[in-house]
Amino acid sequence: MKARVHITLKTGVLDPQGKAIAHALGNLGFAGVGDVRQGKFIEIDLAETDRDKARDAVTAMCEKLLANTVIENYTVELGE
Amino acid sequence: MKARVHITLKTGVLDPQGKAIAHALGNLGFAGVGDVRQGKFIEIDLAETDRDKARDAVTAMCEKLLANTVIENYTVELGE
Repeated sequence: MKARVHITLKTGVLDPQGKAIAHALGNLGFAGVGDVRQGKFIEIDLAETDRDKARDAVTAMCEKLLANTVIENYTVELGE
Repeated sequence: MKARVHITLKTGVLDPQGKAIAHALGNLGFAGVGDVRQGKFIEIDLAETDRDKARDAVTAMCEKLLANTVIENYTVELGE
């Protein structure tokens, strides 16, 4: 089973990388670009076939390793 | 309008960051973790309200700045 994890900075947490992208897009001539936020996207291949167990496992992975839950949110999606 | 961009390494391109995550998950006791791939996830607020124009603009942003199209793929999703 494939799991897709999105890790994004919580709202209110400063995102200098996103600000740099917004600034660079402005310099390149793209108008009308407002806020830009950059996050991480992780795809994990799991041997687990039970959806509930897979979701629990990936949630534990996020809590323990993938996300810094002080400043980041994460969402878990399961594929086929 | 909000655009969500996923930037992932093309298949066949080595992903040392993903390998490091897979290895760390193994060390933490998570069994059954296969391939892990890490990509980027970017959310962009756009002033543009026309969906076609917004998609064209974001695609141009990816080609010019956000993605390294030699080694990376990108997908663009538009929100409301």
